[in-house]
Amino acid sequence: MSVTANIEQYAVGVDFGTLSGRAVVVRVGDGREVGSAVVEYRHGVIDRRLPDGTGPLPPDWALQNPEDWREVLRVAVPAALEAGGVDPAAVIGIATDFTACTVLPTLADGTPLCETEGLTGVPHAWPKLWKHHAAQRQADAINALAAERGEAWAPRYGGKQSSEWEFAKALQVLQEAPEVYERCERWIEAADWIVWELTGTESRNACTAGYKGIFQDGAYPSTDFLAALDPRFADFPATRLEYPGGLAALGSRVGGLSKQAAQWTGLPVGIAVAAGNVDAHVTAPAARAVEPGKLLAIMGTSTCHVLNGTILADVPGICGVVDGGISAGHFGYEAGQSAVGDIFAWWTRLTGQDHDALTAAAADQPVGGHGLIALDWMGGNRSILVDHDLSGVIVGLTLATRPEEVYRALLEATAFGTRVIVEAFEAGGVPVEEFVVAGGLKRNSFLMQLYADILRRPVSVAFSDQAPALGSAIHAAVAAGAYPDVPAAAEAMGAVESGAYVPDPARADAYDALFAEYRALHDAFGPSGGALHRLRKIRNAALASATGSETKGSPQ
Amino acid sequence: MSVTANIEQYAVGVDFGTLSGRAVVVRVGDGREVGSAVVEYRHGVIDRRLPDGTGPLPPDWALQNPEDWREVLRVAVPAALEAGGVDPAAVIGIATDFTACTVLPTLADGTPLCETEGLTGVPHAWPKLWKHHAAQRQADAINALAAERGEAWAPRYGGKQSSEWEFAKALQVLQEAPEVYERCERWIEAADWIVWELTGTESRNACTAGYKGIFQDGAYPSTDFLAALDPRFADFPATRLEYPGGLAALGSRVGGLSKQAAQWTGLPVGIAVAAGNVDAHVTAPAARAVEPGKLLAIMGTSTCHVLNGTILADVPGICGVVDGGISAGHFGYEAGQSAVGDIFAWWTRLTGQDHDALTAAAADQPVGGHGLIALDWMGGNRSILVDHDLSGVIVGLTLATRPEEVYRALLEATAFGTRVIVEAFEAGGVPVEEFVVAGGLKRNSFLMQLYADILRRPVSVAFSDQAPALGSAIHAAVAAGAYPDVPAAAEAMGAVESGAYVPDPARADAYDALFAEYRALHDAFGPSGGALHRLRKIRNAALASATGSETKGSPQ
Repeated sequence: MSVTANIEQYAVGVDFGTLSGRAVVVRVGDGREVGSAVVEYRHGVIDRRLPDGTGPLPPDWALQNPEDWREVLRVAVPAALEAGGVDPAAVIGIATDFTACTVLPTLADGTPLCETEGLTGVPHAWPKLWKHHAAQRQADAINALAAERGEAWAPRYGGKQSSEWEFAKALQVLQEAPEVYERCERWIEAADWIVWELTGTESRNACTAGYKGIFQDGAYPSTDFLAALDPRFADFPATRLEYPGGLAALGSRVGGLSKQAAQWTGLPVGIAVAAGNVDAHVTAPAARAVEPGKLLAIMGTSTCHVLNGTILADVPGICGVVDGGISAGHFGYEAGQSAVGDIFAWWTRLTGQDHDALTAAAADQPVGGHGLIALDWMGGNRSILVDHDLSGVIVGLTLATRPEEVYRALLEATAFGTRVIVEAFEAGGVPVEEFVVAGGLKRNSFLMQLYADILRRPVSVAFSDQAPALGSAIHAAVAAGAYPDVPAAAEAMGAVESGAYVPDPARADAYDALFAEYRALHDAFGPSGGALHRLRKIRNAALASATGSETKGSPQ
Repeated sequence: MSVTANIEQYAVGVDFGTLSGRAVVVRVGDGREVGSAVVEYRHGVIDRRLPDGTGPLPPDWALQNPEDWREVLRVAVPAALEAGGVDPAAVIGIATDFTACTVLPTLADGTPLCETEGLTGVPHAWPKLWKHHAAQRQADAINALAAERGEAWAPRYGGKQSSEWEFAKALQVLQEAPEVYERCERWIEAADWIVWELTGTESRNACTAGYKGIFQDGAYPSTDFLAALDPRFADFPATRLEYPGGLAALGSRVGGLSKQAAQWTGLPVGIAVAAGNVDAHVTAPAARAVEPGKLLAIMGTSTCHVLNGTILADVPGICGVVDGGISAGHFGYEAGQSAVGDIFAWWTRLTGQDHDALTAAAADQPVGGHGLIALDWMGGNRSILVDHDLSGVIVGLTLATRPEEVYRALLEATAFGTRVIVEAFEAGGVPVEEFVVAGGLKRNSFLMQLYADILRRPVSVAFSDQAPALGSAIHAAVAAGAYPDVPAAAEAMGAVESGAYVPDPARADAYDALFAEYRALHDAFGPSGGALHRLRKIRNAALASATGSETKGSPQ
């Protein structure tokens, strides 16, 4: 690790997750994490009632409170500095990353509509968390129209916009609460809003604009397209998204720390603040996975994949491809698996056995010895089928099948699901040479070896246990000018155990036979209108008639 | 219930199961069970070592000790008499039923070869229990040759002889231990051997000869056929099966109780002894299910179906059809499901939850509310696919799926499996109008209602908790002349709660939609060479190479 920056300088990274925010203080010279602190959001995920008691919210809603985010700046940042024994004067920059698409309506000065008079009790005035799933009708309309018109941007998103993203959520506000839409002067990702809070000036980052805001080839969707969706929506980008400054590259300095934010954080006024970023994407430099060919998987309850490529390719079924979406100068690809650790946890709940016991018992078996294949769709399929009405399948059960055997089949199923994504990238012309893992599941060495064997690729493991926050600190260091660019900073400050797991040829061969079975099941159960969709319809109708109310969306 | 026989007369029925034998003393006039007793077999299922320590036995072997069976006569019969306070002089007959095909080699006088000098340490000299599964190679040869030659008897067994049956097991002895085969003077079902022990003279019953001994249209398989299998096997029926007295009808008197057997049992010398019988088939009169159209299901760990029909039809996939196989004057059909209660028990083991809790939690759901479909093949499929290399499938799992939901889907799957059998009978021209249940699962009223709804037929429930033994007692009463025939005795002595459960039209409609999904999965996963067979091969190869030994047969 070459030291290219002053060893006595520090950068602060702040990672805004779904339930809490984490600040970490990192030594700029070598990436050493010297202090960190976590603050749970006081209001967590708001899915029942607004803070003033308004409610109940409809099904599939998920909101957050901007004040909870500010509290992370006020509490976690000073606490992390104190934990690390770092003099705030030695901090040269701060950067943040956020869940996405988490998005909110604000006034022209950045004030959240939910904090303006008369709107605190209006649900649509509040920030919509990434997992707000009540805009499916709007997403369906966007997708149908885009397909009909052959919009050029559609294939960049694997052919489908998610209901979670900016346009669907904004259109929902417009159609369900036009008075709120009317008062919305800016529609902004929380990733950019938190930066606004730090600098006092608006900025927009290239990552969320590309992945969540349909910004492709220098433009948002056309006025024609939007007018066809809803005449009132025609000027949406022009009035509420576009920013004279254009989009900021990741790692660029978008301003200096404001007096207000300096008071909150205890950091010096005027230090560099980096462009906003997304939790998954910001992790790539922390795991030194910015080079093309390195597929970074942030593996936790779900898995998010990010991968730099040298060409712009349409890869069917991925979440998106964005120029500079991970780091400037490359095309950043994103894909994902809706449920991974969530599936393993589900099985522990079903069986009442814990992960360690199940893993230990499963590890002894020869590959294929359980005779099972599972489809890892218990939470739907994000890539490459982009279908949340799919569900899980387990095949090959016998009276002798033990809990740990199913558990192992579920571990394998998630790896097979990853292999489908890897093969889709390669078939699309985007090479995948190495698999890099960050996130909680990296600690499961049996799982990591299994991924190496099934993917037939070396698996590297990020050192940091708080890789997104470290990734933000790396971006802060770049924004402060300590490194010329993100890859250089990643080289110095990121850390990865490279090739920690390598494929065992015999096991890899054995897994190939199982993967062929997975692929056959995938192709048999995946298509629209198949057994899984019919069962989902039967289920939804049964539950709706039993509760006497309409079942909206796809409860998981 | 009309009383046609002396109320002070009694009959004794003895049911020989897999692990124990049960005697019951029944009042002839009204079928009242006045006393019973159970004796566990001292040697249980012999699958590791012979009583003299010889072993270990190869995989898939299962033997029993004839002395354990005699002990039931010596201990359980007197104990049942004593429990009922019945004077042995009031007993007019005794009958037995047995697991099948449980079969043994004997000398001409009925002495088991395993009890003759020099053979006590030879595994092939011992009785082979029904679940001895090591003769698959011989069964395959029989089936291939029968198909090739178009043997007329083959369709009577749904197209396939089981490895469990008489000819496959005998051929295994011949080929693996020719010296034992040479000394075998009689090859006899335990069902007939135990009667021989009671009377002192050999007899053969029509039921086992038909279902397990390939006796059809008055003859065993031809000398030509058998010679083509193995020249040494050509005279097998003539030398070891055929009996000058021919086959005895069920319920007929085949002799009087011998002095020896009278000493064992405490019963009077010379009382009627009925022809041997099979545990499932003998149950029909106990549940008053001998009329055509009444499908009797003995539901426990597995389910055995017996059904009388008025015509001889070839029904693909059933176990067999035998003239007089259940009661004289009708064609008796048999079918089965390899695992039923075993599947429910498997799920309780996997989840650590008990049946009552799972049933209570599952009962609340609307039909289809769990969104699941399962294939009930965790123990293979006996009817109508006749394939023990199949395995179970569960489809439609989500992160919200709870243990009781899978449990309910498994209950439903066994009912769907039954419906496939019912539809096969009806498609073959054998009507099924009512479903009659005996066996342990009859106590689960939620399950019984579910069967009524799914089968769209009334479900009747046998009163007796020891229906096979009661069925034997009914046959004893007929053999003793107390009733003119088995149906008449069934009317007086059998008891059933007729139409205890009737289909609910709304639920039945809802289940129709799920059954369509079951049928689609059944047809997708059932065919030979599909995913389940490939997974089984992968599993067997993996386990074989892991243990370094060849995996024989299909361990469940």
